[in-house]
Amino acid sequence: MNEQHKSLGEAYNETTYPLIGHSRRNVEVLLEAFQPVDGSQAGDMYGNGAVIEDFQKFMADELGKESVVFFPSGTMAQQIALRIWCDEAELKRVAYHPLCHLEIHEEDGLKELHQIETILLAGEDRLITLEDVQNLNSDIACLLLELPQREIGGQLPDYAELEAISAYCRSQGIKLHLDGARLFEITPYYQRTAAEICSLFDSVYVSFYKGIGGIAGAILAGDNDFLAKSKVWKRRHGGDLVSLYPYIISSEYYYKQRIEKMGRYYEEAKELAAMFNQCHAVVTKPIVPVSNMFHVYFQLGKNQLEPILMDIYNTTGIGFISYLKEASEDHCQSEVHIGERYGKTPREAIQEAFRVLNEKLLEAVQP
Amino acid sequence: MNEQHKSLGEAYNETTYPLIGHSRRNVEVLLEAFQPVDGSQAGDMYGNGAVIEDFQKFMADELGKESVVFFPSGTMAQQIALRIWCDEAELKRVAYHPLCHLEIHEEDGLKELHQIETILLAGEDRLITLEDVQNLNSDIACLLLELPQREIGGQLPDYAELEAISAYCRSQGIKLHLDGARLFEITPYYQRTAAEICSLFDSVYVSFYKGIGGIAGAILAGDNDFLAKSKVWKRRHGGDLVSLYPYIISSEYYYKQRIEKMGRYYEEAKELAAMFNQCHAVVTKPIVPVSNMFHVYFQLGKNQLEPILMDIYNTTGIGFISYLKEASEDHCQSEVHIGERYGKTPREAIQEAFRVLNEKLLEAVQP
Repeated sequence: MNEQHKSLGEAYNETTYPLIGHSRRNVEVLLEAFQPVDGSQAGDMYGNGAVIEDFQKFMADELGKESVVFFPSGTMAQQIALRIWCDEAELKRVAYHPLCHLEIHEEDGLKELHQIETILLAGEDRLITLEDVQNLNSDIACLLLELPQREIGGQLPDYAELEAISAYCRSQGIKLHLDGARLFEITPYYQRTAAEICSLFDSVYVSFYKGIGGIAGAILAGDNDFLAKSKVWKRRHGGDLVSLYPYIISSEYYYKQRIEKMGRYYEEAKELAAMFNQCHAVVTKPIVPVSNMFHVYFQLGKNQLEPILMDIYNTTGIGFISYLKEASEDHCQSEVHIGERYGKTPREAIQEAFRVLNEKLLEAVQP
Repeated sequence: MNEQHKSLGEAYNETTYPLIGHSRRNVEVLLEAFQPVDGSQAGDMYGNGAVIEDFQKFMADELGKESVVFFPSGTMAQQIALRIWCDEAELKRVAYHPLCHLEIHEEDGLKELHQIETILLAGEDRLITLEDVQNLNSDIACLLLELPQREIGGQLPDYAELEAISAYCRSQGIKLHLDGARLFEITPYYQRTAAEICSLFDSVYVSFYKGIGGIAGAILAGDNDFLAKSKVWKRRHGGDLVSLYPYIISSEYYYKQRIEKMGRYYEEAKELAAMFNQCHAVVTKPIVPVSNMFHVYFQLGKNQLEPILMDIYNTTGIGFISYLKEASEDHCQSEVHIGERYGKTPREAIQEAFRVLNEKLLEAVQP
């Protein structure tokens, strides 16, 4: 490929050691997960059959909830959770963070399909606090908390604050829903099991293609009545597929492969963030990650930084990040999440690449 | 397993020659489709990437439409099609058959999620006619026709009637949507290509796990503007999965395997229906199938017929049908669709099994 027309993502994908995530999202992800599976194993049929029921039971135990239903996507699962709580309260209003997935990534499905009004709590630059919840001016059926708050670098409240929000919601009859897309990834920081964290919430969504690295798929967890209702809505949304087993089998496979590695990913995220922070004109958010993810901010325009990164990718074989988002004319940012790749990369090679990055940033960014 | 507690479905699955469909719906369906695929092939990402875009382009050509979007399910695809036409007409009313999939199998998703009012045309025992459409008392944004009409045995209007309905809808500004879950299965009877049939409709849904026998998945086809809108609604419904390739690759694989066999399945369905009709107290609907499917009606109660069938399955190794639905105390019915299995079964064995069935029905059903 012509080097001059290569994108940052292409250059990143061509490095020997891309640092982010588990692997390329290619068909090998499926082939590996199905390698141990016998072809005679029956598929699921419209939510029934051992392959889906056993996994749902297994995950219910893992999360300490009565019941679990597997969904094709978190978008579907979470809209449905909020709808059920709104119907139960006979109140079509919920509250969540301004950068909640439902608010910015779902084409307003919650409003367009469910006519649910939303209150945006806190600000785009900070977490929801107990005080925000206590100061609500309107009644709400449900509060959604996203842990970690992805769009601000994956930040987390103190666990005590989380417990206080949970207790307050219970006292007020407000249902508490967890957007736990990255639930497993925060257990090492909180030093709590997934079940302990889930016990603070009435309903929980978890994804299987974030830290777990499956193909796609999600679950809702909660009590039996809630999940029975969710199945009706799953059918209405068109999510009750004749067979979901390609996602279920890969979710289970990668869950069992990686659930014990969340602590390592977290430690490696802290290590990598420290290396970014040691570079001139670079800062991560949070400074010290509280999960396997963080954001990186550069005091340099996207157009200036891209050729610098691509040059380093080319000469060192290390790929730091796969894209840059313009924050302003002379600032840009990206997102990092740790999976299998980082730990397989020689530390000396990473350190050398950061040495070069720092050198080039010192040249490029005048103090 | 204890023979006395076995269900008809279990007994059917244990026969050497079950006659319905392609194969068991087990993991082998996936493994076979992925056997030729190289692991390095990139997956799709939120509707983008060669694996989804190439298949959509291929199917658009097959159906003679500008554009195609792949969906995880037909439930999702069809609700979205009707919503788009209603929004365009600023009229939230559509018409379809009383036994339409949206009316009886989707937990009223169209009404609950889209607030679309429905008019039921024709009766539960017959097809929608041109006259039904002409006699509509209310304006509608869209008419949905299901070809073949599955719940009445897979019946079809004459092609001339279909053309007349299409012309009438166009003259009235009514959008015509095809529930073509089994579109490919009707091309041999109509002696028309899928594209010719689709040309009568503004939007078309096709399934990949009926006659094609994939794992799951569906497409919507139509013009560019319609499909662009459908992608927004797909995101809202939670159907814009990070990766749909397990369904796409299997859909393409089985499409290419089986699209040329639709004529054979149709001929075999007629052959099998004739054998049912030669038995005492049995009649199929239609008498002569017009696709690869038909319904079978028995003038005998479900509880009387089940042990008779199970005994024949056990002694002959032929499995006729996998379930019986009670129609009344002394009538029951089932559904048959032809795939790969029928053609692989020795004809003499089938004929012998039908000889025994007829004998036993003559004993059981007094004239």
